Amino acid sequence: MINGERTISQPLRWGMVGGGRTGQVGYKHRTGALRDSTYRLVAGAFDLNAARGRDFGINLGVSEDRCYATYQELICGERSREDGVDVVSVATPNFTHYEITKALLEANIHVICEKPLFFSTAECEEIAALAERKELIVGVTYGFTGHPMVRQMAAMVARGMLGEIRLVDMQYTHGFNAGDDADAPDAVKWRTNPKTAGATFVLGDIGTHVYYLSEIVLPHLKVEKLLCDRKAFIPSRAPLEDHATVLMHYDNGARGRLWVSSVNAGNMGSQRYRFIGSKASVEWSDSHPDQLIYEVQGEPVRIMHHGMLYLEEESLAIDRMGALHTEGLGDSWANIYLWIAQAIDAKARGDEAFLKTHHYPGIKAGTDGVRWLENCVRSADAGAAWVDFK
Amino acid sequence: MINGERTISQPLRWGMVGGGRTGQVGYKHRTGALRDSTYRLVAGAFDLNAARGRDFGINLGVSEDRCYATYQELICGERSREDGVDVVSVATPNFTHYEITKALLEANIHVICEKPLFFSTAECEEIAALAERKELIVGVTYGFTGHPMVRQMAAMVARGMLGEIRLVDMQYTHGFNAGDDADAPDAVKWRTNPKTAGATFVLGDIGTHVYYLSEIVLPHLKVEKLLCDRKAFIPSRAPLEDHATVLMHYDNGARGRLWVSSVNAGNMGSQRYRFIGSKASVEWSDSHPDQLIYEVQGEPVRIMHHGMLYLEEESLAIDRMGALHTEGLGDSWANIYLWIAQAIDAKARGDEAFLKTHHYPGIKAGTDGVRWLENCVRSADAGAAWVDFK
Amino acid sequence: MINGERTISQPLRWGMVGGGRTGQVGYKHRTGALRDSTYRLVAGAFDLNAARGRDFGINLGVSEDRCYATYQELICGERSREDGVDVVSVATPNFTHYEITKALLEANIHVICEKPLFFSTAECEEIAALAERKELIVGVTYGFTGHPMVRQMAAMVARGMLGEIRLVDMQYTHGFNAGDDADAPDAVKWRTNPKTAGATFVLGDIGTHVYYLSEIVLPHLKVEKLLCDRKAFIPSRAPLEDHATVLMHYDNGARGRLWVSSVNAGNMGSQRYRFIGSKASVEWSDSHPDQLIYEVQGEPVRIMHHGMLYLEEESLAIDRMGALHTEGLGDSWANIYLWIAQAIDAKARGDEAFLKTHHYPGIKAGTDGVRWLENCVRSADAGAAWVDFK
Amino acid sequence: MINGERTISQPLRWGMVGGGRTGQVGYKHRTGALRDSTYRLVAGAFDLNAARGRDFGINLGVSEDRCYATYQELICGERSREDGVDVVSVATPNFTHYEITKALLEANIHVICEKPLFFSTAECEEIAALAERKELIVGVTYGFTGHPMVRQMAAMVARGMLGEIRLVDMQYTHGFNAGDDADAPDAVKWRTNPKTAGATFVLGDIGTHVYYLSEIVLPHLKVEKLLCDRKAFIPSRAPLEDHATVLMHYDNGARGRLWVSSVNAGNMGSQRYRFIGSKASVEWSDSHPDQLIYEVQGEPVRIMHHGMLYLEEESLAIDRMGALHTEGLGDSWANIYLWIAQAIDAKARGDEAFLKTHHYPGIKAGTDGVRWLENCVRSADAGAAWVDFK
Repeated sequence: MINGERTISQPLRWGMVGGGRTGQVGYKHRTGALRDSTYRLVAGAFDLNAARGRDFGINLGVSEDRCYATYQELICGERSREDGVDVVSVATPNFTHYEITKALLEANIHVICEKPLFFSTAECEEIAALAERKELIVGVTYGFTGHPMVRQMAAMVARGMLGEIRLVDMQYTHGFNAGDDADAPDAVKWRTNPKTAGATFVLGDIGTHVYYLSEIVLPHLKVEKLLCDRKAFIPSRAPLEDHATVLMHYDNGARGRLWVSSVNAGNMGSQRYRFIGSKASVEWSDSHPDQLIYEVQGEPVRIMHHGMLYLEEESLAIDRMGALHTEGLGDSWANIYLWIAQAIDAKARGDEAFLKTHHYPGIKAGTDGVRWLENCVRSADAGAAWVDFK
Repeated sequence: MINGERTISQPLRWGMVGGGRTGQVGYKHRTGALRDSTYRLVAGAFDLNAARGRDFGINLGVSEDRCYATYQELICGERSREDGVDVVSVATPNFTHYEITKALLEANIHVICEKPLFFSTAECEEIAALAERKELIVGVTYGFTGHPMVRQMAAMVARGMLGEIRLVDMQYTHGFNAGDDADAPDAVKWRTNPKTAGATFVLGDIGTHVYYLSEIVLPHLKVEKLLCDRKAFIPSRAPLEDHATVLMHYDNGARGRLWVSSVNAGNMGSQRYRFIGSKASVEWSDSHPDQLIYEVQGEPVRIMHHGMLYLEEESLAIDRMGALHTEGLGDSWANIYLWIAQAIDAKARGDEAFLKTHHYPGIKAGTDGVRWLENCVRSADAGAAWVDFK
Repeated sequence: MINGERTISQPLRWGMVGGGRTGQVGYKHRTGALRDSTYRLVAGAFDLNAARGRDFGINLGVSEDRCYATYQELICGERSREDGVDVVSVATPNFTHYEITKALLEANIHVICEKPLFFSTAECEEIAALAERKELIVGVTYGFTGHPMVRQMAAMVARGMLGEIRLVDMQYTHGFNAGDDADAPDAVKWRTNPKTAGATFVLGDIGTHVYYLSEIVLPHLKVEKLLCDRKAFIPSRAPLEDHATVLMHYDNGARGRLWVSSVNAGNMGSQRYRFIGSKASVEWSDSHPDQLIYEVQGEPVRIMHHGMLYLEEESLAIDRMGALHTEGLGDSWANIYLWIAQAIDAKARGDEAFLKTHHYPGIKAGTDGVRWLENCVRSADAGAAWVDFK
Repeated sequence: MINGERTISQPLRWGMVGGGRTGQVGYKHRTGALRDSTYRLVAGAFDLNAARGRDFGINLGVSEDRCYATYQELICGERSREDGVDVVSVATPNFTHYEITKALLEANIHVICEKPLFFSTAECEEIAALAERKELIVGVTYGFTGHPMVRQMAAMVARGMLGEIRLVDMQYTHGFNAGDDADAPDAVKWRTNPKTAGATFVLGDIGTHVYYLSEIVLPHLKVEKLLCDRKAFIPSRAPLEDHATVLMHYDNGARGRLWVSSVNAGNMGSQRYRFIGSKASVEWSDSHPDQLIYEVQGEPVRIMHHGMLYLEEESLAIDRMGALHTEGLGDSWANIYLWIAQAIDAKARGDEAFLKTHHYPGIKAGTDGVRWLENCVRSADAGAAWVDFK
């Protein structure tokens, strides 16, 4: 159980690019980073509006001289200090991830970046090589996957409690974009524009969360073939999509179904996962994340609750609130941020043995997401045809 | 509201072929038929074991001389009586549906048949022509679709409460065949043998229920293209399938997803339907059939309950138990049987005007199900390729 | 599993008093009685409006000469026939139960009566003595208690699966009478008038269902002390109540809480029961009756579903639809009617050994309900004071 | 919406007494305090074991010289510093609350104390007078009541959306103490000992949470009469209780039911609240806190979700994660800590106008809880008799 004690040698000096007052996601980064004596927020280029960003940063306790107008100024300013930032989070629109990450790494700063990581696997591989050369960490904020019950699913699959995996059914859908985008906020507009979002809308925005979670639970399975049928029900979003179904064939013969949509009108159920084996299934939803449904064929359905001693040790180890007390998405982000901090700490210590088995969403996870998107787009562009996964 | 009063001129003299003591489905037919003063069970060839069938029939109140050994004897015996059966239900394995139905119609007896109706649309069309010539009804027992909340969904779509239909997500899955069939009961064995089941297992056995329900709710939409990916996770079931995903493109641009499986280990959720429009969605599951989830984007989720006055008149008209009092699958079958009886009654009176607008699962519904199966198999056999629906 | 085969020597000739076209409950009796080849409806005094009652009876298949204007005529007419009714159901307002039941028994006709049975235990005891002398059965339609999952709870308690019973929490509440009664239908008006309803409204109308269900699950516990706090939130209902809380102390030290109300605005949850033992609890609601929640302290919550082989034999024996297929309130009534038929059949055969162990809601169950009401009223009238149960 | 920006003039220098490595509740305080740039943890007497406490404090980032062995040393040490603590949280067993709070106030330090606040209203009133004289704040950590959906319920009642309040049904039950205490951890043992826990176990430990939440939602109602029936199912806990039912009569004629228990075997449902008015009801459970059930009689049941724009402004103002993203108990604690910080800040500024309308759980809330406990015990000791609330 996590109680906030520091598990790394020194708190990390932390900065942010983006995540300012008008953003949706900045607080999730901060509420994830700040509760464990692990990160101290000391610098930021929070906002394209420099004055607003400075005012914002001061309110977060950042000293005025470390509230920068641009990420370039941040890098420049921090490099010139003895106590410059160790790590910077990038919470900006997709099209800026690559250039900011690259610049930070070149300045010897670890990076924590939003998903989808970059626009292409080529970019990912270039950055991976750069990070390796620099001996730096690139973490990716797949924020939902820090929940203890996600680890519980992974542990149950690993222990064989489900038998051989046969079917995977996954979805992340909502209805917040069911109407057209005429009056949509900027956070929608850049997501539906290929120049700022990349080659996908919902596949990248929410589908990469789903794909990564499936990788965690099913690390032993590989996708062999894939079919992606996508559509923009709001025509202005084309060629990007607001709905997509992806069918997958895994190398063990299992079949996968994945659905993402932002036009599922009224839906509050959001993410749902069902992993089906020859003996049993597990089902989890982020709308009631503290419980897991475990169904052994022919036995009563079991509902497992976070923090209970019958859970696997991997789940209990990362519980924060204890049984009966709800964990929220912020607690999941806190675990993600903690794991990335532990990776950075190990990297700084040169502890490659630790890093070999340490679990966190890093450059490989980010790259896998981008590769999956490329395969989806390739299939969709071929008329929703089956393509070999590569 | 239905209170059991007779709505047809005379109770129908009713017989059964199959549905005996060891069958799974016979009681569903009887509990559906016998509660409304509409049918009287007077004859039967209930069982391949003639003695057991006779004993069984007597226990159901059938006189011994009308408990027959075979359907041929039933037809012969009943034709020779003044008070012979008006209608016979066929609750036998798939491969016998065609020949029994044909023989009954030729003997001027109305038919109520289990799904999937026959093995091919050619057979369906031949029987449809025969029934038309003979002026007889062929009903098909899509037993779930008599529930008041299914009618409620159809009425809401018809009134435009969802806006334009965009997405349809449907499933009927369970895990009762997750293990192999070595010790399976006969009811499983004939379903996985192409000779007795036809060209499909779960697509026909449970998928046709789903497809028919979608036709009721979305009568204005037609499938244009379809892709079916099917697999037998238990190899002995091949070439039939125990899992299939079907993707559909409708003529209005809507997208459909349909999943059927009998290897969804542990799953008790069974049937789930979600119809998504530009404004709102409705969701219904047969595992909690008395309620409907109605979700208007941007408003609180609404849970509607059967029997409540805020429902559409089509739903309230067929409610049997009243609000707060659970309706079961038997109540749904009772409505199906009632509607078929009303069709038979109208046919007998020559009331074609009534039949034009009267809703019941008849030969067209049965044919549509078989046609859908043919398209699914064609796609699956082409490597889960897209096929034009025909 | 029940498949509709007759389990008694001869179908019972059955009549009804009340339950006509405008009543709420008549169809529940008929849908319960008519599906098992056990009862045949042959006579009735269905309605205070004789012409409407006759028309209604004919539509139910009763011959015109056996559609009577009053219960007295029914008794007179049926006594004069060789094939007169064996048993009559009484589905009339409370204040008529006693006189109709008495008259039927004196005419040697078995009785199935609505709850609450009579106005006083004195009346109950008089009728019990009369029934015993006449060797006749009085059944009481506690219609919810025929559900397989209610039997499952009873079996689990009997097997010690819960440990020693400590707490019982029960409720039956709805909001259909949250508004005043100015425009209420007759079915509400007679229920809130002491002359026609007796000394209670919701305690008798719905509370007796709850108390009887608790007797079935906990036959070994006796109430020692009781406190009833009741109130009419709609003043015109006083001195009767539309809300009551009853606290009970059982002879083993267990504590009970029971809540009934018809002013629980908007509530569709209706009946809920939780039986808590030293090791585990079971919980059941009639709004989702096919499942049972079984909670062993320290283990995952288990959801049990009707018809599954892991259930106790008492539950499986009375299942009608099979796993996955919802059972409704009508199926529960069907079991109640079947059990009463079996009691009548045994009584006719003089099989007292069978009757000693046969479970059905009879005169004792009806009397217990009335006794409980008397204790509740005594406590409430003493200012919601504790009273010894007697 | 809360985004972590500082809303007070200066971050508060914060200390803790108790809440060390082996405690259950310390992390909840820290995760609540540390995410909003509002508190900085600078001192602590975390543990009765001084060495363990010092090690723990250092891991939390507290400098070694401010990790104290006792609360007395903490007060002494911090008073001697220019940058001594502004406020200290007391997370120790009940019997120490009074003396520690008193000592802190006398040293001019604000206090945030666990519930139940003290052993008697006399103690509460003495401390209230002391705090007033010293111009200091005493906050009480009713940690569940910071959830946006609790505020939503209060706002809905205030706006009259429920009509006149009639019924209140509340419970906080679990089964973690269903077994005996032979091997129980210290956290259970001190809670069942009157010397360390006071006059109650579950009434104080969990019931005070429930009572305070009801005060927030129903500030206009006062309890007039009360009856408390309590029992120790594990005899060693007597005279304290592990189960209690409290009935309440409010001054507007409403009726309340409250149930607390720690022997509700297997129960994971925990807290449940239902507020019932003449027009509608609201229901909320902390096991799925992001949603609220709003039921208007005669309309579909509505499920409201946190963060949605249809909610009242009081709820949206304190949302942290945004719609679809689950809020946990930690987010609720964060709001409580923020509100107390705002009170301390206002007190420091002498802004009594702000304090008059500012909502936070302070000394009055703590006192009300203790008064309610005294009334419960008085009733229980009189044989579960009705007592006038005083």
